[in-house]
Amino acid sequence: MVPHLTTALSGPLLELERRFLEASPQIEQWLRGQWQEYTPPFYSSVDLRNSGFKLAPVDTNLFPGGFNNLNPAFLPLCVQAAMSAIEKFCPEARRLLLIPENHTRNQFYLQNVAQIAAVLKQTGLEVRIGSLIPDLDGPTTVDLANGQKLLLEPLRRQGNRIGVDGFEPCAILLNNDLSAGIPELLRDLDEQYVLPPLHAGWAVRRKSNHFAAYDQVANDFAREIGIDPWRINPAFSVCRSINFHERQGEECLVANVSAVLDIVREKYREYGITETPYVVVKADAGTYGMGVMTVRDADELIALNRKQRNKMSVVKEGLEVSEVLIQEGVHSFETVHEAVAEPVVYMIDRYVVGGFYRVHTGRGKDENLNAPGMHFEPLAFETGCNLPDYRCGNPDSPPNRFYAYGVVARLACLAAAVELANTRLDP
Amino acid sequence: MVPHLTTALSGPLLELERRFLEASPQIEQWLRGQWQEYTPPFYSSVDLRNSGFKLAPVDTNLFPGGFNNLNPAFLPLCVQAAMSAIEKFCPEARRLLLIPENHTRNQFYLQNVAQIAAVLKQTGLEVRIGSLIPDLDGPTTVDLANGQKLLLEPLRRQGNRIGVDGFEPCAILLNNDLSAGIPELLRDLDEQYVLPPLHAGWAVRRKSNHFAAYDQVANDFAREIGIDPWRINPAFSVCRSINFHERQGEECLVANVSAVLDIVREKYREYGITETPYVVVKADAGTYGMGVMTVRDADELIALNRKQRNKMSVVKEGLEVSEVLIQEGVHSFETVHEAVAEPVVYMIDRYVVGGFYRVHTGRGKDENLNAPGMHFEPLAFETGCNLPDYRCGNPDSPPNRFYAYGVVARLACLAAAVELANTRLDP
Repeated sequence: MVPHLTTALSGPLLELERRFLEASPQIEQWLRGQWQEYTPPFYSSVDLRNSGFKLAPVDTNLFPGGFNNLNPAFLPLCVQAAMSAIEKFCPEARRLLLIPENHTRNQFYLQNVAQIAAVLKQTGLEVRIGSLIPDLDGPTTVDLANGQKLLLEPLRRQGNRIGVDGFEPCAILLNNDLSAGIPELLRDLDEQYVLPPLHAGWAVRRKSNHFAAYDQVANDFAREIGIDPWRINPAFSVCRSINFHERQGEECLVANVSAVLDIVREKYREYGITETPYVVVKADAGTYGMGVMTVRDADELIALNRKQRNKMSVVKEGLEVSEVLIQEGVHSFETVHEAVAEPVVYMIDRYVVGGFYRVHTGRGKDENLNAPGMHFEPLAFETGCNLPDYRCGNPDSPPNRFYAYGVVARLACLAAAVELANTRLDP
Repeated sequence: MVPHLTTALSGPLLELERRFLEASPQIEQWLRGQWQEYTPPFYSSVDLRNSGFKLAPVDTNLFPGGFNNLNPAFLPLCVQAAMSAIEKFCPEARRLLLIPENHTRNQFYLQNVAQIAAVLKQTGLEVRIGSLIPDLDGPTTVDLANGQKLLLEPLRRQGNRIGVDGFEPCAILLNNDLSAGIPELLRDLDEQYVLPPLHAGWAVRRKSNHFAAYDQVANDFAREIGIDPWRINPAFSVCRSINFHERQGEECLVANVSAVLDIVREKYREYGITETPYVVVKADAGTYGMGVMTVRDADELIALNRKQRNKMSVVKEGLEVSEVLIQEGVHSFETVHEAVAEPVVYMIDRYVVGGFYRVHTGRGKDENLNAPGMHFEPLAFETGCNLPDYRCGNPDSPPNRFYAYGVVARLACLAAAVELANTRLDP
């Protein structure tokens, strides 16, 4: 099933997609050149927003958690891409240890873990799941809603190597974003590859580094195919030393929100766009849509009530927010069953392997859909975002729209590669 | 639809398949190591024979001609694998020239060409089709039975570069096996990649070189997973300086056929197999199942009548046969709708991307199914031969049988890589 797509603005969007389709030999060649220079992360998922006049990534996840939501028909694509990634990172690997998040009660997340393990097994690896849960005292089988079972085993460290009982892996794949910090257990390992590297975790990673790398990627790409980089790149700014509780850094926030809104207003004027500009203020480190706020006017920041300040000050694992990203908001004009939707594209290595729509029935087109308590209704794309349909030539046909999604998602993946190359564990 | 499989002997076959499934981490690791050392051909297809007690390649085609017969669901796999191949051979390529065979009246073949072109276009390359047809004086559109059109353009050489009018490609993909010799047009090109290399064509290539390389691959692999290499490797021998018309080299043929039959008889005794051993005598260079003969006793070679001698003496493009391969025959115990069937597995780069059954309603289990005038009934595999089903653990389930096919096909692909590394254009 291809979800029904409605695009409010058809002109400029079609123009952008048509440009991607026409330029696809150039785009693919350019990307191949980039992949010679930068190593893509093992896997990633990218949240896109499509406003009709703009198609841009708003978040790039290096520990993707929704593989269970992909169309099952894409499994062979995932396996082939994973084979290519393993060949690059650790060709001699036979055994791989997967380290998931600790939340064992989230059935959706556990099905994602099972799906990742299934893909890796299909590449011919022996796969076991090592858990960071502190009080897991022995192998524990978890029943999944789909009838499968998942065996979680306590991680054991011996000298400078990590594993689970009777299993010494050559490679370790993290599906844990390290929001709680980098466990000592995982530091200074000896000849065991950790994928993605530890500094990809939120203990070290900053969204602002990612979007700075994306600036570079988007500018190079836009020059290459002759478009305004703003069409694929949300403006952003950063404030450090924020304390929402104590109202520290408010001036920085106000100034930067105003600055970003000014850039956006100017662009809207240039393109004759009548929508109301907005920015999204979010924690510079962290995930799960926590610590996120939509702002249409800088004044809103002065009048934050206690509840709003509390909401902004803490993200996953109780991490205190002191650095925030101020990102241009991109309206979502895509709707699925009359609810606002945003596409999420999944990649393994440099290959797009599928995607789905995140749908929120209770939110507006300028709101964050990855919100706590959201009604999450993933709809798998029928097409894999990697195959444009040249025969029909209509940019509004799903394969062609999805090709554009696949291109922008790969630009974000490339930005993550640049970001990881430019950052390290102990900066 | 998965074709219904019937396997007459279940014991040893299941044992072999079970061995492959159990050893899959080892197999995949070993293959990854081999691909670090050898570069797979751009694409290939492998004819397999499955006798229950033996699963072996009998022919490896480096200019595969049946992409149109694959399950359309495998298209994304083909595209991803082709992206990987292009990235390796010619990352900077934007334009690719496809050179097909000259037979423009074979609708099946032309659909194959269209399918290859479609896959390459989906990777983002500009693709044109350059024809070697000598009397093609301008661009010619051919209508295909499926409603598509194919534009054939005359090849033009300018200096040391080749192309078609207004199109200078960076890469040239041959789907022409060069049975007619290497055209001057294609020699000594300047900075244009020719894929596969010219010495992969039948003007230079010898099946005996391929199977000598396969001996090495099969022995290494068999040692790795602890099986008798004969279980996956047909015994063979070669006679050069044969002239069927003038009955030259008959003694060599008789001696070598006897020798191969002796090896097979000994093995049959060892495994308690009661089938009648046979060998297949075929041209050492050439394709399309021409110049092929089944022999159960060396005496049959002495009494060849004129018709049989004529049949053996010429292959495609009227090439005179003077070198023959004497290959152990592998019975086919697979039947589809009660007709004898042999699996054909397709690969792009080192990835299995699908396969189908070649079915012959009028032939026995020890006969060549790739025969002129055959009733060819390709049935696409529903599974891609790359995903074993570990959950069910039953080697007789189609995904697991197909995994075994995928493994043996990749061994043949590896042998082709070794063969191409060990041979060259002007030996």
